[in-house]
Amino acid sequence: MPKVTEEHRLARRAQIVAAARTCVIEEGFHKTTMADVIRESGLSAGAVYGYFKSKEEIVAAIAEDALSTIDELFQKILATEQAVTPLMALEAAINHVVAVAERPGGDVTRVAIQAWAEALRNPAIMATACDKYTVLRGNFEAVARRAQADGTVDPDVAPEYIAQVLLALIPGFVLQRLIIGDVTPDTYLAGARALFRS
Amino acid sequence: MPKVTEEHRLARRAQIVAAARTCVIEEGFHKTTMADVIRESGLSAGAVYGYFKSKEEIVAAIAEDALSTIDELFQKILATEQAVTPLMALEAAINHVVAVAERPGGDVTRVAIQAWAEALRNPAIMATACDKYTVLRGNFEAVARRAQADGTVDPDVAPEYIAQVLLALIPGFVLQRLIIGDVTPDTYLAGARALFRS
Repeated sequence: MPKVTEEHRLARRAQIVAAARTCVIEEGFHKTTMADVIRESGLSAGAVYGYFKSKEEIVAAIAEDALSTIDELFQKILATEQAVTPLMALEAAINHVVAVAERPGGDVTRVAIQAWAEALRNPAIMATACDKYTVLRGNFEAVARRAQADGTVDPDVAPEYIAQVLLALIPGFVLQRLIIGDVTPDTYLAGARALFRS
Repeated sequence: MPKVTEEHRLARRAQIVAAARTCVIEEGFHKTTMADVIRESGLSAGAVYGYFKSKEEIVAAIAEDALSTIDELFQKILATEQAVTPLMALEAAINHVVAVAERPGGDVTRVAIQAWAEALRNPAIMATACDKYTVLRGNFEAVARRAQADGTVDPDVAPEYIAQVLLALIPGFVLQRLIIGDVTPDTYLAGARALFRS
């Protein structure tokens, strides 16, 4: 029997996460069952349960997958030698969201919107959403602190409050993109540049 | 038999809308059935169907009810003699959202989040959401035009794009308020004042 390598394990895990993403996009979080995910993945029930015990665990993995490269993105912004501005962070984040949404395998922002609704009545999803958005907001807070140090943002306002507004612009973009449909990074960032000081 | 007055009709209609709001908040849009709404309202099935043919129609009425006073709010902002700024509109809109959310009978922003998720797979809900958010964004666009005329916002940027960003700040606030829970109008508007030119 071949040894199950770590690479093999990760590929299997990714296969399950992709199957769950497809199910949630097509049927909604609520209607999707573990049986649907198992069928869509083409794996056995035993194999799937070996990786994930519940839909909630898979949704956490979808979120993890979608947000995994965000920290890198912010580290890159904070590493620049020029003055950091909120607009730089917003531009990078919005372009990133669209790039992730357009990946093959279905628009993961559709899963995010399902997760927000589900979070209101499912404590495990709520904990995941709260955790992920708190981390993401922490990244915007780091940008705000850096911008304050650089003199591009008023240093007398709590960076946490500035981060609340910057974070809000991500779901606000995602929703308009899916519901009204006419917003693009270009139009949105042009609007932000008109409104923002820096 | 007493004549059914218009007042009586409106009270019955409000009773059904309130019942549906309670059901959607407690059970989610997806699990809520017309039978649940009928039971919660205390009216007969015939009475309820006399007002609404489907869950979709009731959700449209919940949205209508929640957004009905927004136009007035924007007309008040635009009627001011002082220079209009995006921050004035944002402050008024955020305070309004919290006032509506805190009305007795359940937080209607929880229904909004359910509606966003449902819109992705239900064309009737999508049409309602698209319509309502387009109207709301049109109000922010009127503010942007006025601010451009007053000289508080760069006149060379399309007011539609500015409105995309201002509209985004409403669901972005609503989500953080319900999911992370630490955002208030005071903290959020302080953050916006640090970021915005005017």
